[in-house]
Amino acid sequence: MPSNSFDRYLEKTRTLADINAAIAVLSWDQETYMPHGAAVARAEQIATLSTLSHQMTVADEYRAILDEVKVDAANGLLEEWEKAAVRESVREFEQASKLPEDHVRDFARAQSLAQHAWKEARDRSDFSIFADSLAHLVQLKRREAELFGYDENIYDALIDLYEPGMTVAQLRPVFQRLMEGTRVILARIRESGAEVSNDLLTRKFDPEKQISFAKETVAKLGFDFRTGRVDLSAHPFCTSFAPSDVRLTTRVFSNDLRSCLFGLIHEAGHGMYEQGIDARFVRTPLASGTSMGIHESQSLFWENMIGRSERFWQWAFPKLQNQFPESLAGATPSDFFRAINVVQPSFIRIEADEMTYNLHIIIRFEIENALINGEIEVADIPALWNRKMEEYLGIVPKNDAEGCLQDIHWSFGGFGYFPSYTLGKLYAAMFYDQAKKDLPGLEDEIASGEFGRLLGWLRANIHQHGKAKRSAELATAICGKLLTEEPFLAYMTAKVEKVYGLGELAGNDVAAESAPAGA
Amino acid sequence: MPSNSFDRYLEKTRTLADINAAIAVLSWDQETYMPHGAAVARAEQIATLSTLSHQMTVADEYRAILDEVKVDAANGLLEEWEKAAVRESVREFEQASKLPEDHVRDFARAQSLAQHAWKEARDRSDFSIFADSLAHLVQLKRREAELFGYDENIYDALIDLYEPGMTVAQLRPVFQRLMEGTRVILARIRESGAEVSNDLLTRKFDPEKQISFAKETVAKLGFDFRTGRVDLSAHPFCTSFAPSDVRLTTRVFSNDLRSCLFGLIHEAGHGMYEQGIDARFVRTPLASGTSMGIHESQSLFWENMIGRSERFWQWAFPKLQNQFPESLAGATPSDFFRAINVVQPSFIRIEADEMTYNLHIIIRFEIENALINGEIEVADIPALWNRKMEEYLGIVPKNDAEGCLQDIHWSFGGFGYFPSYTLGKLYAAMFYDQAKKDLPGLEDEIASGEFGRLLGWLRANIHQHGKAKRSAELATAICGKLLTEEPFLAYMTAKVEKVYGLGELAGNDVAAESAPAGA
Repeated sequence: MPSNSFDRYLEKTRTLADINAAIAVLSWDQETYMPHGAAVARAEQIATLSTLSHQMTVADEYRAILDEVKVDAANGLLEEWEKAAVRESVREFEQASKLPEDHVRDFARAQSLAQHAWKEARDRSDFSIFADSLAHLVQLKRREAELFGYDENIYDALIDLYEPGMTVAQLRPVFQRLMEGTRVILARIRESGAEVSNDLLTRKFDPEKQISFAKETVAKLGFDFRTGRVDLSAHPFCTSFAPSDVRLTTRVFSNDLRSCLFGLIHEAGHGMYEQGIDARFVRTPLASGTSMGIHESQSLFWENMIGRSERFWQWAFPKLQNQFPESLAGATPSDFFRAINVVQPSFIRIEADEMTYNLHIIIRFEIENALINGEIEVADIPALWNRKMEEYLGIVPKNDAEGCLQDIHWSFGGFGYFPSYTLGKLYAAMFYDQAKKDLPGLEDEIASGEFGRLLGWLRANIHQHGKAKRSAELATAICGKLLTEEPFLAYMTAKVEKVYGLGELAGNDVAAESAPAGA
Repeated sequence: MPSNSFDRYLEKTRTLADINAAIAVLSWDQETYMPHGAAVARAEQIATLSTLSHQMTVADEYRAILDEVKVDAANGLLEEWEKAAVRESVREFEQASKLPEDHVRDFARAQSLAQHAWKEARDRSDFSIFADSLAHLVQLKRREAELFGYDENIYDALIDLYEPGMTVAQLRPVFQRLMEGTRVILARIRESGAEVSNDLLTRKFDPEKQISFAKETVAKLGFDFRTGRVDLSAHPFCTSFAPSDVRLTTRVFSNDLRSCLFGLIHEAGHGMYEQGIDARFVRTPLASGTSMGIHESQSLFWENMIGRSERFWQWAFPKLQNQFPESLAGATPSDFFRAINVVQPSFIRIEADEMTYNLHIIIRFEIENALINGEIEVADIPALWNRKMEEYLGIVPKNDAEGCLQDIHWSFGGFGYFPSYTLGKLYAAMFYDQAKKDLPGLEDEIASGEFGRLLGWLRANIHQHGKAKRSAELATAICGKLLTEEPFLAYMTAKVEKVYGLGELAGNDVAAESAPAGA
């Protein structure tokens, strides 16, 4: 017996999906093509559609339909994916309904003020300008976390917004071991005295050629230009209006090869995830990536596991050199591989290398956890930040602009978001380990510029499921285990040994099995 | 005493304006950047937002607010522009409410079928493929016209959709005199035996250079790139998401200079109109051009009155020649002026010259009037079309593809639209006549590339009023008279005399006063 209420549910969820897609188009246009003078009008258009979307999400009529369709689900009238769609809609409904209107309004106002204050504070490198606004946001997010509810740690309620099911209790031991492993590797580099130059990345590179090389590269990886496109914006991003309409952006600097190319490979990783979602899920809440962490695993998979691997550049470097024969004259694929993998503690998260990046995340995670739990005050942040930078990375920011004011996330109240970045790296390494086992000869394929089987594996195991399967379910189904830092540390150790020409060291068990014979 | 109901009205009308702006953004993106594979998803997104917009327009809640605010208007509680906004909203409400849902659905389906049938019919040049779909659309539009109501002629109800207040009774004598005047001028050219070549327009012109020249030109005319931009699309258009966000498109052919440049000047004319609307009208129904005819008067004003004038090219031609020194070698501003103003009866409306274009429109007007009044059947169209082409233009289409199947308008049921094009030409000439009287020295300014005073005149007299003043009100306020063909015929006669080197002829009174001394 088919479910009539599911049809009514679908009608509503499609309307919601279409409104949300329109908001995404308006936002994409704002970042790519919109004339500056249109900022106020656009903000009003987006606010109006967002209000409509919110009103529909919390409407009594929708609640009634969800109640009916939940009964059908319990009575076995729905397929698995239909049940998952209802589960996600109920989650959205509950999240939206738990926040009273006055809170939503207060929060929007506080966000707006905080973003202005943060910009000024960062420009002047003066944390005190931002402190009051930030304290207000922390207070509101604490209220929000209480309204959402949690079992153990109030911060869990906020992490759950980005990574459903993830908790501080799960993250802390993983992050602890990750930090220790990272510091071991950093010490090995330091003690070896080896140095690798990345000078060849900052020569002159024609922007048009960079863009066309980057586009050709992501097309070759598997990003489908029939259902996607690439534009320029101040900061690279990926947005999806439907699995058949995925937009990437990148940016380009004539004196740095990295930003355009790796930015686009990263976004194409997000984009291929969105393009690969099961066609049945279109216009339902299942038609997007399952969590920020898994989404980031897909972008980092292509950017780092593939795009910063030596094998990839054995295939791609001659093509790149062909585009820039003068600037890359005399360089070998191996030189290039080493240059793009230099490890060096630095102040700015988004400029950090693949490995020390996680230390930046752990600092933010620890500070957010303490803040939301009321263990520290906003005023404590600058000193605490600098102390942790010194302890974990061995360097101290000269000022707050290159310290605790560098990220935009806190200015919009995005507490709980940062862990996603490191989750992405850890999941990516777990998935790559498994892909190599499932697909014998995979690395040879990469070295020949063949990525079809790999993309097929990601599609079958991850992409097609959209939001139907949660992160933990995916990890268990694919790798037979929950989140772990081991594959990442092993991968990183092997890479660093190659880049810095380190031999195997006694006691470095983690790295041993992956270390290349001739490193 | 301020009107509280007006505030509630504004809230609703702003929501509607924002939704309609979002639809316009989705449509713009569809024509400019959207990947092909997204067509189905985009159609659904636009349909969903259009349904929302329609539901809000006809909702009882909105009707109640309109009823209240109409009372406030009658009681003198509203300013003039506020009353005009309410008048336009009531008009929209009534138009939307008069159509029963089954009609809207039937019509949407009939449109969709007719568009497919028309494309196939045109491709195969076989009117019979399109005939049944067209007959169905005619029947539905007749029903629609009855539902909207009319005083004298059923076709008036459809013309009114594009040109509020305009009727067949007003148009017929104007069109009759316009046709007669046009045939006099055509006969003069023919009898003179003079010929003008436009070969220099179809040499090789680098597309990038064409686009940048066209953009610089419209910027110089006054199109504001802080609140607007230019992109490429298959067919040029202008769309506005707000007076602060106006998008133009053009297209470019490397072997024809006209399409990109005159297409963009034309669209910039529409765009400057939208950019010039009173800021108080933003997010109300007043924030767009008042009618298709007046809108077209603005695009044609800049494209033809200015952009195809000899004075304009005295200023602009050296710049153009500088961009294309080889292809335009040896040509003078006068050669160029003559080339872009060749008059020649031809089959395709959109390729017709400034003057014979109106004969194409009159043919369509007469056929539509007869069709909607039930005086002819759809099956009569091809023969009637060809007979009128022969009578008015002296040429007979070889087949229906270059005859009655050439335009898309009937395939979406756009009966009543065609007269707007000629109204635009007639209003443009009336306005230019008046502008020259109001602004002594105007033509010298044009010859020096100065357009600020002219744009200011258009802003003050036309643009700022948006939809607050109707066409007839504008014409009367600016020119002291209603629609007339005289200024257009005088302008055209003077131009043709210059282009073809004709002397003044006895009995050619209309042209005499405008004919240049040395023609």
